[in-house]
Amino acid sequence: MLSDIKQVIVVRTDLNMSAGKIAAEVAHAAVSASEIARKNAYEWWKMWIESGQKKIVLKIEGGDRLMDLYKRACALNLPAALIYDAGYTEVPPNTLTCLGIGPAPSNLIDKITGQLPLLK
Amino acid sequence: MLSDIKQVIVVRTDLNMSAGKIAAEVAHAAVSASEIARKNAYEWWKMWIESGQKKIVLKIEGGDRLMDLYKRACALNLPAALIYDAGYTEVPPNTLTCLGIGPAPSNLIDKITGQLPLLK
Repeated sequence: MLSDIKQVIVVRTDLNMSAGKIAAEVAHAAVSASEIARKNAYEWWKMWIESGQKKIVLKIEGGDRLMDLYKRACALNLPAALIYDAGYTEVPPNTLTCLGIGPAPSNLIDKITGQLPLLK
Repeated sequence: MLSDIKQVIVVRTDLNMSAGKIAAEVAHAAVSASEIARKNAYEWWKMWIESGQKKIVLKIEGGDRLMDLYKRACALNLPAALIYDAGYTEVPPNTLTCLGIGPAPSNLIDKITGQLPLLK
């Protein structure tokens, strides 16, 4: 049975971004990873769009840990997008803020992000 | 001179959603409105993607006010997506949570959302 399809966005909480800033960065990751999937994993993307675009937002501390997740996602050939903020507002220029993975089958994404807590 | 291109997401603050929930709902609106623009306003969409996907997150109180904005966006033929949450977590089923408008020229979107405050 095919696993369900989801997108996971992992956001850094060590930057002390506001709720609005987090939302904008997460949205950026969601659109960017979705576009990568649409081009490189169209069947996953189509299933995800048609099934309601399940999204999960998780938290992590530190850019190095986020970069490590990105490399692991790429090694599994999952659609993945790192987001660097231009730094006009709350963080310094070119700060790595979050990572979008998928849409992809949940069981594959969970291999990478399964241990991370939800952002509440 | 062509106005710059942006996407605005307006989110309800009267629902007392957590930062993570807000981020997921805003991301949903961003992807949905982006898809509508890709199909119905491709040139705007392409400019937006290529210029870095500018996104602004604004706040509003009340679903009726959000619905009113949506109708005004549609009347201007702007790409617009209303997001209703399935209600598995923080809000009742089928709660209207946010609205994505654009990507579209800033001067057109500002006619609708220019008075609303930033979500911080």
